[in-house]
Parts: sequence; structure tokens; C-alpha cells
Amino acid sequence: METYTVSEILKKESSIFQSVSIKGWVRTFRANRFIALNDGSTLNNIQCVVDFEKFDEDLLKRITTGAAIHVMGDLVESQGKGQKVEIQVNTLEVLGDSDPETFPIQPKKHSFEFLREQAHLRTRTSTFSAVMRLRSSLSFAIHKYFNENGFYYMHTPIITGSDAEGAGEMFRVTSLDAKNPPLNEKGHIDYTEDFFGKETNLTVSGQLEAETYAMSLGKVYTFGPTFRAENSNTSRHLAEFWMIEPEVAFMDLAGNMDLAEDFLKFVLKYILEHNLEDLTFLDTRLQNEEKTKPQAERSDMGLIDKLKFVTENNFMRLSYTEAIEILRNSKPNKKKKFKYLINEWGTDLQSEHERFLVEKHFKCPVILFDYPANIKAFYMRLNEDGKTVRAMDILFPGIGEIVGGAQREERLDVLKEKMAAIDIPEEDLWWYLDLRKYGTAVHSGFGLGFERLVMFATGMGNIRDVIPFPRTPQSAEF
Amino acid sequence: METYTVSEILKKESSIFQSVSIKGWVRTFRANRFIALNDGSTLNNIQCVVDFEKFDEDLLKRITTGAAIHVMGDLVESQGKGQKVEIQVNTLEVLGDSDPETFPIQPKKHSFEFLREQAHLRTRTSTFSAVMRLRSSLSFAIHKYFNENGFYYMHTPIITGSDAEGAGEMFRVTSLDAKNPPLNEKGHIDYTEDFFGKETNLTVSGQLEAETYAMSLGKVYTFGPTFRAENSNTSRHLAEFWMIEPEVAFMDLAGNMDLAEDFLKFVLKYILEHNLEDLTFLDTRLQNEEKTKPQAERSDMGLIDKLKFVTENNFMRLSYTEAIEILRNSKPNKKKKFKYLINEWGTDLQSEHERFLVEKHFKCPVILFDYPANIKAFYMRLNEDGKTVRAMDILFPGIGEIVGGAQREERLDVLKEKMAAIDIPEEDLWWYLDLRKYGTAVHSGFGLGFERLVMFATGMGNIRDVIPFPRTPQSAEF
Repeated sequence: METYTVSEILKKESSIFQSVSIKGWVRTFRANRFIALNDGSTLNNIQCVVDFEKFDEDLLKRITTGAAIHVMGDLVESQGKGQKVEIQVNTLEVLGDSDPETFPIQPKKHSFEFLREQAHLRTRTSTFSAVMRLRSSLSFAIHKYFNENGFYYMHTPIITGSDAEGAGEMFRVTSLDAKNPPLNEKGHIDYTEDFFGKETNLTVSGQLEAETYAMSLGKVYTFGPTFRAENSNTSRHLAEFWMIEPEVAFMDLAGNMDLAEDFLKFVLKYILEHNLEDLTFLDTRLQNEEKTKPQAERSDMGLIDKLKFVTENNFMRLSYTEAIEILRNSKPNKKKKFKYLINEWGTDLQSEHERFLVEKHFKCPVILFDYPANIKAFYMRLNEDGKTVRAMDILFPGIGEIVGGAQREERLDVLKEKMAAIDIPEEDLWWYLDLRKYGTAVHSGFGLGFERLVMFATGMGNIRDVIPFPRTPQSAEF
Repeated sequence: METYTVSEILKKESSIFQSVSIKGWVRTFRANRFIALNDGSTLNNIQCVVDFEKFDEDLLKRITTGAAIHVMGDLVESQGKGQKVEIQVNTLEVLGDSDPETFPIQPKKHSFEFLREQAHLRTRTSTFSAVMRLRSSLSFAIHKYFNENGFYYMHTPIITGSDAEGAGEMFRVTSLDAKNPPLNEKGHIDYTEDFFGKETNLTVSGQLEAETYAMSLGKVYTFGPTFRAENSNTSRHLAEFWMIEPEVAFMDLAGNMDLAEDFLKFVLKYILEHNLEDLTFLDTRLQNEEKTKPQAERSDMGLIDKLKFVTENNFMRLSYTEAIEILRNSKPNKKKKFKYLINEWGTDLQSEHERFLVEKHFKCPVILFDYPANIKAFYMRLNEDGKTVRAMDILFPGIGEIVGGAQREERLDVLKEKMAAIDIPEEDLWWYLDLRKYGTAVHSGFGLGFERLVMFATGMGNIRDVIPFPRTPQSAEF
């Protein structure tokens, strides 16, 4: 008798099998007769029907929520609603008991806060198993997209000796004695005695290293963990998160926009095609959650609507300068409904402005480009106007910025000037400057915070609920 | 006129195009006439033929090794040997010069040691671009294999608050003041004031967390960075490396062996199918290197031979106890040719013993299982004999162990005893113990050091040459 996963069994016709073997965890056991069995392979349970007169009472008492069991029986057409097939149980074995008094995941609604404390068990719920299957599917779609389009995947270093990345506060990585670190003659920590012979930190971005590979392999991307030691205790920040960073030689900002739009549409279409069950479940969950909110705060779009809003619309492209004009003259600005009013060119946009452009003004995803140089990073290509850079941000409904990218400054002299202006010593980035010394060329790339994408794709409102074991200030459990 | 990559152009027939546009870096410029142009998309260069009478002499002087150029011209059948097509250049633009006096990558043979110091430029050589394309291709094959076989990809945490993983020395992650860390009343470092409110380290393995997801989603795998703060300055150790760790519920050790064998064959077949050009180049490189060695040290097999040795043979499976018998009675043991002689049951095997079994005795990859409990980790399933555990190691030619795995101890009482014996407090792994409290079941998994696989697949002898920017004692450059 062959063993199947629930996913495999639910795809088959009842007429094909006679008897099947299956292992999983009990979700519910109803009327001493109907076991809803789940093994994680799909959102759905397989119904296992027990004739309680045939089984020992003590055995049936052990069929509790969370117990692992092995069922053998006949696959038949289901008599009940909600499933095509069910299993008429012939033999039943309890592999691992689950004490219903203490098992934390009861068959009832738990708060996400509570489930975060049980992160090792929360994927035994429908919501979190759906979220994590989607996370996995999005990951694969990302690799598939780049692989099919001639990109090479590269692993940029996690531990970095460079502190010039400039994207935020860093964690120190050390094996020095914490209490009595060695000091040099000046009385400073003697990092030459540390493991790497210098001060090292956790990376905040793989971009600069990715540029080295773009300038030799042509098209590359990273997909790896990045870190911020910022004390941001919000629903949108993690200290440890995964980032995707493609980087392409000979590509300008227009090409970068084309790439990002094509990429985002591909990965979202992929899950619409491969994960519709999980998406539909999360869509319903979200709609129920929305109903508990005051009318004014409810979203106009359901989850699947929002995904199609991205996959089925062309992204509107306009300059930062044009966007400022639109925002300055907008109703919410004039009626002072924005929390941060837009008065002048040069100000950074907030999420409320980004969402206004996407959801109210253009009603499609938006790409803004040519931002003021002084609100963007040093490595972005300075335009001929001397005051804007070839940066781009992609704005999505509900969340605002999802992608940030730029054409990189390829001119050695301009790059050196920009580094000097913010006191980055040339010797710290000698290798980055080398790329501009030897065969420099136009090149571009972007960064996408993976958890932001998973939030968008699952409708989850807190970033801690889209990564297996979140790392946040005061919390590194599991 | 469309722009193509070298890889795209080389696949086309000359009759299809008239004129093409291409950008890349000059590898060589021969006889003021033949430019070998490479853009990283493939090992091969496209030959661009310049009629020097048509171009300015000053322009031609700038066609130097490493320069980035843009060529437009006609694709024609090649007159010379070694390529089917070439480009008759009509226009030529230098995008970025490369001073031949200072460009570190000269058109000659450089030592790998030298190129490690130029790791930002070394992928402009044929060897390193081939290695890194293979690394990328292997990564994709890994994701593809698991995706096609119903596994979910999960990201286990990099920063861990648990120091019970037991696989080696760890790096501390901190944002405390390095020189004057806060002390508690006992005079110890007060980690409650650190970012996460406790002492945290870089992970040495995602296995324990992967088990939590296997016990809910069924089949999962990790593919992420792991760390060792060990002062091992060898050609086989990195402080930062990538690891693949599948974990499967309801799977015993025999299933684990089947999975690992099938997986390894799949990924190696994948590169044989998709990366034969790069493999052939590296095979030749390796054979030339071997010729410089004394006869006795030369490998019997070429690179592609070695890959086929894995993909075309069944892996021999035998117990540790049987292996010890074979080794004890082997010629090199009796003639005292082994550096470490095998005298008794219980000793750990060295690379020389593993290679003897694979290369001399069985002449196929070998899986050893049921190792002595006291040389293996606490979480491995104790056999009924009370002295061996359901561990397995997979042994490959040339390198010895490539995979280590086990069936996990699923019995709460036995696991608690084993933890107590090595002083792991239960409260440190409360969540790991929960998996045995609530619906426990047989489950298994294995770990594969990705760089070991890339070394095997590329024939590179030093692990620092198969990762973009290696992290080793005293070195965290770039």
C-alpha cells in the first residue's frame, strides 16, 4: 500500500485507488467519527471516517488535536459536503499523542500575538501554513525568473569589514572577550586581535559586492539575509530580513524600470497560478478582518484584487518633480488631510503620499524616478542637472514603496567627489572604485525587501508574521 | 538594431542576422585586428574583427584588456578556427578604459592566491567565471529539485539566541558598547541591555528550527548561510559558508538515504546537462594541474568522470561496523599506510579511510550508517542496541564526507536524557522538546555544505575559490 500526502490524495479520483496509507496531524475529531487530518502539504485536510464500533475506546480518546497519526483505509467518494473524497479508516495508529489540556494550538481562533510566542507550532494553523507556503513559492518564483532571464545567483558576504554601505545601523560580529577586550596602545579596542583582524559587522546590503559581479558576469542577483540594528519596534521592521538585489551591466534606469516591473508581475502571476487555494483562504481571512474595522479604514481591494491590480496594470512612470506637483495640488494636501503636507521640492515622500498616488490619483502601480540627490545614496548616478539622481522607487497599493533602485554612478571622478562629501575614505572602498577604473560602464539594479513582498502577497499586516522566527528589539527566541 | 549577449549570439546562425550590437569587456586584442570580447554570459568570447584602416589609431590604442566597449557590426560566418560566427565591426565605442599598465588581470596565468586578493575582478577570468556560473547553476538545481518534490523552502534565523546547536564555536552578535559594556550586579556583561535582551550568536545550523517546520509542513529545506568561529586556516574551512538542510516528517533513515542519493544525482546531472562548456573547461584545467603533480598523487578520474561516477553508480550502503571491519582488514591498514590506523570499533573515520572505501574498495559513492552514539550529535535517534545512532554520512571520491544526516530522536524521554548528559538545560530548547510532546513522529534530514559541493563539481582545490568573497581567520576583505 502506498503512502501519499494529503495534497496528492486530494488531486486523485476516488475510483483510482483502493486502499491508501497516510500520516499527518489531527486538526479536529468530530462526533467520534470524522478526523480532519493535515500534513502541511496543502491547506486542505483529508476527512478520515472512523466507524467507532470497530475501534478501541482508549485508542479513539487519543485522537486529539495535534496528535500525529497513521491511517490506512479505503479512498471513497465523500458523502459529506466540502470534499470530493474521504478515507474510510481500516487501521489507525497514534504515532505521537498530544495532550489536549496543554497543547497550545487549540481548535479555535488564536491572536497573532499569542501565536508569535508559539512560532514553532504556529504553522500547524491554516493561516500560517498558507503564509509560509506562499513565502516558499515566492522564493522559488524569484529564482525561476532570474534563471530564465540569464541572471547568475551570487552569495554576497554576510559578515562585512566595510562600514561604508550606509544603509543603516549595523550589528557587530566578534569573538573577542566581551568583558575584557584587548586594547591597543591608544586605549581603543584592538580589533587586530579579533577573528578577522579588523572590526566586522553584519551586512546591510549586498549591492556593492553585486556590482563587482555584474561588471564581469553581466547579470547577477543576490537573495540573502540583511540586518539593521535599529530600535524600530513597528509592524514593518525586522532586525533580520531577506533581500533580493539584481544588478545588471550596460543597463540604464529605463531598463531597470522595465526589469523591476516585469519581475514583480512574474512572481505575483506565479503565485496566482500555483497557490490559489492558499491565496483564496487568506483573501477571506483579510476580508473578515476588514469587516471589524471602521468603514473609513477598510481597504477597497481584496487580496487577490490587489495582486491583479499589479499584474494587470502598466506601471505609471513619472519623475519625482512631477509627483511633487501632483501632490502639492492634491485635495488632501490643500485640505490639510495629509499628516505631512507637501510644500516644496526636495522633501522626502511619506507612505501616505505614495499611497495617494497609487490608490487615488493613478489607480495603478507607480514608478517615481529622478529623486533629489541629497535624499538618496552616494552611489546613485548624478543627472546632468547636478541636483537629481537616477533613482527609482516602485509604489504599491496598501504599502507604498516596495522596490528602491538606481542607475549607479559609473564615473570615477564624480563618485570620488560624492564619497569625499560624506567622508567615506577611498581606501575603504578601493575595490568599488576599481570597477570605475577598469572598464567602467553604465549599470543599474534595485533592492526588494522580501518580507515586504510576502506581506503584500499574503495580506498579513505585521512583518513578524511572514518570517518563520522574527528578530526584533528584545526578541530572538527559538 | 538589437543588443545581444555573447551567449545569445553564439547560439545563432550567421545567416539569421545582418547587424548586431553588443557590449562587453575586452579579453585580448590581437594583431590590431581581432578583439576577443566577453560579457560573462558564457565562457566563450565573441571574435570582433576590426579593419584597422577604418578606425582612428587613438581609438584602437584604447582597446586594451579589461576595457568596456560597445561594438556594432555584421554577424558573419567566421573565417578562422574555433568559432562558427564572428562580428565584422562597423562602429566601435570605448565605454570605459582600462590602463594596461595597472589593470591587475593581465592576459596571462595568475596564481589563485593573487586572484583571491583581487576577488572583485577575478570573475573576469575564464576559471572564476566558470566556477561562479556553476555555483549559480547548482543553486538553482537545488531549489528546483526540492520544489518539484513537494518541499517548502524556509529561512531559518541567522541570529540565534540559542547556543545549544552544538556544531561548533560561534560568533557573538552585539550592539553593546565594545569597550565599556554594561555589567550586572554580579559583574558579568548585562546582556539584557543588548539589542535582543540576551546574548546572541550567528547560527551554526538551521536544523533544529527546520524540524519545527517539518513537523507541520511535512517536507521542508533550508538554504542559507551558517558560521563557525573556528581558527581553521585550511583549504577546506570557511568562517561563513552556505548550507542546505532538508528535513522530512514521517521519514526514517532509509528514506533519508534515498532522498540524499536522489538529490545529489539530480543536481549533478543538472549541471552536466546545462553547464557542459564550463565543466569541460574546468576539466581541462584540472588535468593540466594534475600533470604538474608526482604520478602517485594524481587523481585517477577527470572532473566529468568524477561527476558521472556519482550520477551513474548506485551508492553502496553499509553500517559503520561493517566499514570498520573492512578497513581493519584492508591492505593500507595492515601495511600501516594509513596515517591513522584502524584498530577498534568506536573510532571516528578520517578522510583517508572514507576515500579508501569509495575509490579503492567499492569504487562507487558510499553511505555509512549506524555510527557510535558518542561521536555523533545528541539529537540523533538512538538504536535499540543503546550504543549506535541512526546517523549517516555520504562519502564521495576525492573529498570524503559530503553529506551528514540522521533520523532524529523523536522520543521525549530519551532526548531529555541525552540533553542532560551533555548539560543542555531543557529551558534552552523548550520549543524543540515541544515537538516531541505534541504529535511527535519519526523524522529525518541531512546537511550539505554547499561549498563542498561546488568544490566537487568544479574540481577547485581551495574552498576560498568557490565563494565570491571568502571569510577566513584574519580576512574579511571586500
